[in-house]
Amino acid sequence: MSRYTYLGPAGTFTEAALTPLLKSGDSALPAANVTAALESVRNGDSDYALVPIENSVEGVVARTLDELAVGEPLMIIGEQVLQVSFALMVKPGVTLRDIKRVATHPHAEAQCREFIAKNLPHAEVVMTNSTAAGAESVAKGDADGAIAAEVAATHYGLEVIERNIGDRNGAVTRFVLISKLGTIPALTGHDRTSLAIFIAADHSGALLEILTEFAVRGVNLTFIQSRPTGSELGQYHFIVDAEGHIEEERVGDTLKALHRICAEVRFLGSYPRADKVAPTSTKGMTDSAFQSADKWLSAVRKGERA
Amino acid sequence: MSRYTYLGPAGTFTEAALTPLLKSGDSALPAANVTAALESVRNGDSDYALVPIENSVEGVVARTLDELAVGEPLMIIGEQVLQVSFALMVKPGVTLRDIKRVATHPHAEAQCREFIAKNLPHAEVVMTNSTAAGAESVAKGDADGAIAAEVAATHYGLEVIERNIGDRNGAVTRFVLISKLGTIPALTGHDRTSLAIFIAADHSGALLEILTEFAVRGVNLTFIQSRPTGSELGQYHFIVDAEGHIEEERVGDTLKALHRICAEVRFLGSYPRADKVAPTSTKGMTDSAFQSADKWLSAVRKGERA
Amino acid sequence: MSRYTYLGPAGTFTEAALTPLLKSGDSALPAANVTAALESVRNGDSDYALVPIENSVEGVVARTLDELAVGEPLMIIGEQVLQVSFALMVKPGVTLRDIKRVATHPHAEAQCREFIAKNLPHAEVVMTNSTAAGAESVAKGDADGAIAAEVAATHYGLEVIERNIGDRNGAVTRFVLISKLGTIPALTGHDRTSLAIFIAADHSGALLEILTEFAVRGVNLTFIQSRPTGSELGQYHFIVDAEGHIEEERVGDTLKALHRICAEVRFLGSYPRADKVAPTSTKGMTDSAFQSADKWLSAVRKGERA
Amino acid sequence: MSRYTYLGPAGTFTEAALTPLLKSGDSALPAANVTAALESVRNGDSDYALVPIENSVEGVVARTLDELAVGEPLMIIGEQVLQVSFALMVKPGVTLRDIKRVATHPHAEAQCREFIAKNLPHAEVVMTNSTAAGAESVAKGDADGAIAAEVAATHYGLEVIERNIGDRNGAVTRFVLISKLGTIPALTGHDRTSLAIFIAADHSGALLEILTEFAVRGVNLTFIQSRPTGSELGQYHFIVDAEGHIEEERVGDTLKALHRICAEVRFLGSYPRADKVAPTSTKGMTDSAFQSADKWLSAVRKGERA
Repeated sequence: MSRYTYLGPAGTFTEAALTPLLKSGDSALPAANVTAALESVRNGDSDYALVPIENSVEGVVARTLDELAVGEPLMIIGEQVLQVSFALMVKPGVTLRDIKRVATHPHAEAQCREFIAKNLPHAEVVMTNSTAAGAESVAKGDADGAIAAEVAATHYGLEVIERNIGDRNGAVTRFVLISKLGTIPALTGHDRTSLAIFIAADHSGALLEILTEFAVRGVNLTFIQSRPTGSELGQYHFIVDAEGHIEEERVGDTLKALHRICAEVRFLGSYPRADKVAPTSTKGMTDSAFQSADKWLSAVRKGERA
Repeated sequence: MSRYTYLGPAGTFTEAALTPLLKSGDSALPAANVTAALESVRNGDSDYALVPIENSVEGVVARTLDELAVGEPLMIIGEQVLQVSFALMVKPGVTLRDIKRVATHPHAEAQCREFIAKNLPHAEVVMTNSTAAGAESVAKGDADGAIAAEVAATHYGLEVIERNIGDRNGAVTRFVLISKLGTIPALTGHDRTSLAIFIAADHSGALLEILTEFAVRGVNLTFIQSRPTGSELGQYHFIVDAEGHIEEERVGDTLKALHRICAEVRFLGSYPRADKVAPTSTKGMTDSAFQSADKWLSAVRKGERA
Repeated sequence: MSRYTYLGPAGTFTEAALTPLLKSGDSALPAANVTAALESVRNGDSDYALVPIENSVEGVVARTLDELAVGEPLMIIGEQVLQVSFALMVKPGVTLRDIKRVATHPHAEAQCREFIAKNLPHAEVVMTNSTAAGAESVAKGDADGAIAAEVAATHYGLEVIERNIGDRNGAVTRFVLISKLGTIPALTGHDRTSLAIFIAADHSGALLEILTEFAVRGVNLTFIQSRPTGSELGQYHFIVDAEGHIEEERVGDTLKALHRICAEVRFLGSYPRADKVAPTSTKGMTDSAFQSADKWLSAVRKGERA
Repeated sequence: MSRYTYLGPAGTFTEAALTPLLKSGDSALPAANVTAALESVRNGDSDYALVPIENSVEGVVARTLDELAVGEPLMIIGEQVLQVSFALMVKPGVTLRDIKRVATHPHAEAQCREFIAKNLPHAEVVMTNSTAAGAESVAKGDADGAIAAEVAATHYGLEVIERNIGDRNGAVTRFVLISKLGTIPALTGHDRTSLAIFIAADHSGALLEILTEFAVRGVNLTFIQSRPTGSELGQYHFIVDAEGHIEEERVGDTLKALHRICAEVRFLGSYPRADKVAPTSTKGMTDSAFQSADKWLSAVRKGERA
């Protein structure tokens, strides 16, 4: 029986992403924000936290990246990718034409602007702190309609009258499942390794050096973001996602090289990819190639024929 | 007399960043969001738009990056960097202890959480669509205090009772000044060049190749972000800021190389850096080194002694 | 009617390599050594010189490389590759068993050692200054047999009694045809460009930088030799052969980059490859890709949509 | 008591280079050529062989490079660098003006051409198989003078009448001391590591990859030569000398990487440099940086805070 927390409130996309992970007996509590969710894992109130890390339309979730990179260390042990689908929901019996006030979160409003302009041109849009809070305000009678995740309708006894109303269908959000440091998920063959890499200040060419260490070992990157370190613009660290698992030799060897040349490397986790894409393996980069090289060097160092 | 627009509403940090740019006779109108501000330049309603692009705490402004990278082409012609300083403001005469409801934008709330917990532990925090809207709600009597940019107090006749209440002082926001394509600002010697670089799908090692083109010409990067192209996670383009001006040979030569090897390169502008930091020039990378190489090759191709 | 010189004496492999180049009316004079052959072109006594540059068994011809790299500038305008085939030759009527003294050049002796050990185990091997001089000594009666190029038998009225007696059949020598600076041979599509590249002293990593300039422009190397500069071991320059012709954009662009970053680059010639192998052309590295990038940059610098 | 062999005959520069290595009781026998010297070590007739590998004027000794790279494996355990100084020697009492025939090896003739032209303009130059053989022919009365290493005068009872007669003074030759595979000389802090690196055929960019593996580990090269593999021009392997000792982590790690990505890597030896130049150590490339990275990775793989 595990205790989960997630970026709340209840009725949001994060809850929708968490639901498939829950087993009988597990508990799931919403947290007020990403920091609170992660703090709950740090202080032992929760075993796991699910928080968004990247949205295909809105970009990365800076708070999540920063908490993982510079907060008290935690570990990513899994990821969930969710198709973001906005629904228009009302009290049972209300119709589109009855909606005078529509409540939603600013990000959802931004993603459904075309729908609103076309279908609710005269409605007042009321901003709420989350899409679920929009649904709640409909339940309370403060608004006539809410734009939210479909799961919110269930929570607040509402009825969905339009589905997939986002301007760009196909928007997805990636969530990461966080635990304390501990056992790394086993290698599956389709894994991702996340890192925070800090470079020494004013070291021009540092990013090229970092990417070269990955490249010479055949490790592809799937994601890179520079993030300001501390409060100053101009000093950066990098969050990268790489193909592969820390137990693989080429990934471990890359990490060791980064540890040598960077100011700091923080391992953020190795975990199965939601899309189950396996890395293309390159000749000379397999575990057996690394092990064979170890044996060869040992023999050569003894002056043996190798 | 120029017509400016900016990310509104009035009374926000963007307006504060715009103010020093305005000359007598210039007009400045707030826009509802980044897209609306840029659209106003595209359709000729405004000459220039000022929008945020990066915040040292909250991260990049994805909407700005995406509009510049994939929207109808525009050009960055300047940047402003503003120290983000939150102020607590009330109706004249109201004191800290009188505040029962405090209104602000979620991002500001996130950055002032420690102040609120310590100084307004019992106040209800009401979310508004902008910090200026928080100030407006105080003026209307819907809240007792607002956390906003100091400029908002002037707009709404309020009184600042606490300054610099952010949890991390020193947070800064970088704003970019946008115009239609046209004359590029003149080279100053301390310039920045922004680019959107699109790579062919599934081309592993592409980022290393891109960075190598910069490195072999001595052009340092000051910023890099991978951004999903379209709505799918997994296909990325890169927004980079490089030292130098497109009129400099090494920058122009780098751009030509990128144009050859990338699916697409979009020039987003060359403009003076707000921090006036000049690039360190490297031997062999100066304009005269490039011009001397041109002459040398011409002579050599003619079979002359060179 | 052209005047040729070649590494003499008459009757050597260099003469054999030159023969197919001669047209009716051309003259061909042997020179005492590589330096004398090249000097003959420099001072106008000859139009062209043919000298060996590389042998698959004995290695590079250091004198040729050094004359081209640091002597008064000349230009390679062609290459000839000759299968090196040693023949045993005698005065008419003499048989293998009659040979008590066999004359040849030390390099030829080194390459025919197995044949000598097996077939002439009791013969005295007399060293001569060239293989042709060995044949001459047979003609004069100073030796009974000579190991030389077959062409020498004709010169000295000898009879070949064994052919292809080298221990490693298939040895080849590459010769280069040298002229004064002047018109570079026209591009054929299967060309080679030779360069001497001098690096600044004590610049570690310089070779990697040089090779990177070739690689980013898709120019492959077919040959590289470090050569000591001057008389000291430890300070080096590089002789490289690259695929392609200086008139090609990617080759010209590489040369310009080398000119910028190296202490000195000396162009040694662009000329058709003897093996007629065309370079594999890479996307983004064609002449039209370079020209299109030039046009694009011009438009972008004017602030045009490109 | 060790048994040495060297590139003979007695009285050459190789013997001069060997002399300082000999201890009381050691024997030193000349071999007819480089192959014979190395074969003597292979078959146990000698413990060590001293052979030339590189001359600052004449270039590399291809036979030595090829024997080490593709012959039955041996190991370089030391190097000697000798200033090459040619002397003119005669029978006691003979003067410069008496010399009608001067005997020497073609390479020595090439390096003393200016001296000969100026001081012996009318003398016949007779080629011998070695400079020592030139001295021997003076002793036998076949020539009046010899150009050879000074040591040859002692061997053949001759008198040196001119010293340092080379056209380019300061020419040096590097000799390598060879043993069977076995104990590698201990690390001294100013070591050199020699390698033969074979690449897969037609793998363009392979040399850049190889150099990158050295560069990312801060290992500088002091020498590189491409050598044709087998008898064909066009397929190459590389002989490289790198700073450092195989017992050093950065060197061992580089070797392992090369072993993974190359067709074959042959370790040719780690041994003290004659010039005693120590490599510049780079941050992150020390043994302790490698060991610290090993420990760090072990801890991180266990999910520990590291």
